[in-house]
Amino acid sequence: MTNQLPSPVSIERAEAPGPAVIVCEHAANHFDPAYGDLGLNNDQKQAHIAWDPGALGLARGLAERLDAPLVHATQSRLVYDLNRPPDSPGAMPEISEIHTIPGNRGLTPGERLRRTGGIYLPFHAGLRMMLAARLALGQRPVLITVHSFTPVYHGQRREVEFGIIHDVDDRLARAIAARETGMVTRLNEPYSAADGVTHTLALHATPYGLRHAMLELRNDLIADDAAQAAMAARLAPVLRAAIAETEEE
Amino acid sequence: MTNQLPSPVSIERAEAPGPAVIVCEHAANHFDPAYGDLGLNNDQKQAHIAWDPGALGLARGLAERLDAPLVHATQSRLVYDLNRPPDSPGAMPEISEIHTIPGNRGLTPGERLRRTGGIYLPFHAGLRMMLAARLALGQRPVLITVHSFTPVYHGQRREVEFGIIHDVDDRLARAIAARETGMVTRLNEPYSAADGVTHTLALHATPYGLRHAMLELRNDLIADDAAQAAMAARLAPVLRAAIAETEEE
Repeated sequence: MTNQLPSPVSIERAEAPGPAVIVCEHAANHFDPAYGDLGLNNDQKQAHIAWDPGALGLARGLAERLDAPLVHATQSRLVYDLNRPPDSPGAMPEISEIHTIPGNRGLTPGERLRRTGGIYLPFHAGLRMMLAARLALGQRPVLITVHSFTPVYHGQRREVEFGIIHDVDDRLARAIAARETGMVTRLNEPYSAADGVTHTLALHATPYGLRHAMLELRNDLIADDAAQAAMAARLAPVLRAAIAETEEE
Repeated sequence: MTNQLPSPVSIERAEAPGPAVIVCEHAANHFDPAYGDLGLNNDQKQAHIAWDPGALGLARGLAERLDAPLVHATQSRLVYDLNRPPDSPGAMPEISEIHTIPGNRGLTPGERLRRTGGIYLPFHAGLRMMLAARLALGQRPVLITVHSFTPVYHGQRREVEFGIIHDVDDRLARAIAARETGMVTRLNEPYSAADGVTHTLALHATPYGLRHAMLELRNDLIADDAAQAAMAARLAPVLRAAIAETEEE
């Protein structure tokens, strides 16, 4: 037995020189013994409530094609949702969609602090370090977060296939949304900043005035490795063009 | 000889239960041998270009009276200005007011990374940890940063004695500015967010929607220990009332 907590952040291609930094906060449906499985059954651990299925594969493909570093989570969002601040009910949710999360009910202050200190702080410190180093070298990195959403939510079928969400600065998101992708594409759908889903962008892009976008893919379009690779091949030129088009100076 | 860098952050009264967290980014005019004295003479090291004279004493007095933690810098702002992002020319300035800073001229990428990694990142990580812990416990801390400004800048005498500056959310700043302090008090003077002086607020308060204010005192009003203590006694009730008045819910 050890008190060591597992690292909540994995950084791939750290030195990659491309203009973007790719982030995937909901990459994993892993439940480390340090935090337990929260009383979930296997179906729940596979479901979209535990992670964003397909997002990591897509994020990896994009990072490779854009020659960008990738910063991704290693633990399920149900242990700590890295795209939520520590005071948000969604950070360690008692309910997600229609599922109660037994291991998150009535969390003690000590357990809330342990997860915040063990997952939230080091993940965002890792991302901050990556961005600050680039800024210190005079670069102006672009922040792109990669997510997926479920085709059916609370019984409603979603028509949108590709959503692009922004925090305060809409330059990059609009440039991406304006390009042809062959998908039903919407700005600020199926969520927007008003729903509290832009925490990572608000923490890391907005205070530095960095261009940013949160990409949301309907998860039936990136259900397996081949589909994720194909989507990365489809979106990489779109992102590359949108980044070039919004270049500062 | 050791390669250990000095801690750039000092935290006092870490467990203090008051509603505010006090920050003083320009507390120190210390030049650790790890970074050298940047080729400055003793007059320059005492001057306002190196630190905010009087700010630490005032910040300490306020922290005591508000029963608040205090997070303050240990190194001169000329080594790294903690209220500036790493890509800002002001972070490691080559010129400050009318003084050239020899040790900051033509900094190598390696030295920019060393100061960013040795000062900027750990200082803000320490402050983030303090705030995140309070948020995880369901608290909504108020962020107050304490600064001082020089009475004469570029030859111009400044009439303002007490400035209150805000980032996006002006609630607390306006509540403070509306109270009688017996001083020439101005909102967003002698600087404002447009001058890039709200980086700490933008990093730590705005992404969490926390109330915040940057206090700027003309440094001739807090020139010695007694004046700093008197100013803390004068401002503490003003802050306490403004915090209460802007309470959420």
